[in-house]
Amino acid sequence: MEVRTGGRGFSDITRKVQEVVARSGKKTALCTVFIQHTSASLVIQENADPNVLRDLSGWMGELAPESRAWIHDDEGPDDMPAHARSAITKTSETIPVTDGQLALGTWQGLYVWEHRARPHTRHVVVHVAE
Amino acid sequence: MEVRTGGRGFSDITRKVQEVVARSGKKTALCTVFIQHTSASLVIQENADPNVLRDLSGWMGELAPESRAWIHDDEGPDDMPAHARSAITKTSETIPVTDGQLALGTWQGLYVWEHRARPHTRHVVVHVAE
Amino acid sequence: MEVRTGGRGFSDITRKVQEVVARSGKKTALCTVFIQHTSASLVIQENADPNVLRDLSGWMGELAPESRAWIHDDEGPDDMPAHARSAITKTSETIPVTDGQLALGTWQGLYVWEHRARPHTRHVVVHVAE
Repeated sequence: MEVRTGGRGFSDITRKVQEVVARSGKKTALCTVFIQHTSASLVIQENADPNVLRDLSGWMGELAPESRAWIHDDEGPDDMPAHARSAITKTSETIPVTDGQLALGTWQGLYVWEHRARPHTRHVVVHVAE
Repeated sequence: MEVRTGGRGFSDITRKVQEVVARSGKKTALCTVFIQHTSASLVIQENADPNVLRDLSGWMGELAPESRAWIHDDEGPDDMPAHARSAITKTSETIPVTDGQLALGTWQGLYVWEHRARPHTRHVVVHVAE
Repeated sequence: MEVRTGGRGFSDITRKVQEVVARSGKKTALCTVFIQHTSASLVIQENADPNVLRDLSGWMGELAPESRAWIHDDEGPDDMPAHARSAITKTSETIPVTDGQLALGTWQGLYVWEHRARPHTRHVVVHVAE
């Protein structure tokens, strides 16, 4: 699955992943989502108030700031912070499937978290197993 | 599975998850544990010295402090720190099963990490697949 | 699988895990890697420029510093920081298998991240399911 991000921020992929689950025809299953990058990651977070995502972004910007004296900066000041932010969020997320639906909580959405400043095309593998 | 937490802190769910594995009758399998919330999370940590969990709590309180100027504070000052702490710990944890037992290390326990100040009833889905 | 680490730092286990996948003979599958410790963890990161790993190490040293007044220090000043660093990285990592190969991105490597100062023998369980 390709996900076009808009630069630093979150892309909700819940519906697209649910569509893959539906197409599999499986009712009780396990859905694994895997992102093939180390400067963007996955996270399951609240999908109700957009300020939650805004706060997460701001806070993560302080936790792994561009202003730190990183050695690796081949692609600019947003390069290494992106790796650091990926390392403490998720590369894979595993979600049980019940009655053909992702068993997410009411307020949970699955997001690609883009950590690079500019838009990127990100590759996400979705695997559904019984 | 419902887990009643005592407010901020850790609830050891290792035994309850092991019981689900035992009831499945599966010997070589994969056990996935998924928490349906974004203000509580999962973590596998040392189950020997309770000071490890105390230190984790204190440290996490500094990493995502209540005193930060969070935008989202609908449910109080512990609301957004809970989301931040969830984002950098686990929503899902996957544990191989060998001889009908969770293949945990000697000192590993599986915990629900409650990030909200008050007690909550948390929903955890356990999936066992061959 | 046993992994002998060289003390604080990263051990690339991508090839060893790929060998387990190959031996399983499975073509479309799910590979779960689980580390049986709480003072060493797993992480998928860039395998091209070694400075990425160097920066991750330095940054993590600031995020969970030895100099903090940890309560738990039974095994020395590197003891509790190791638990903290493990808690925000991965105990399990799940990677889809396509055509008999781990579906990793071009620049992704799977590493055991040793958080203790001295070398350790770490136990990693690899599970391959169809």
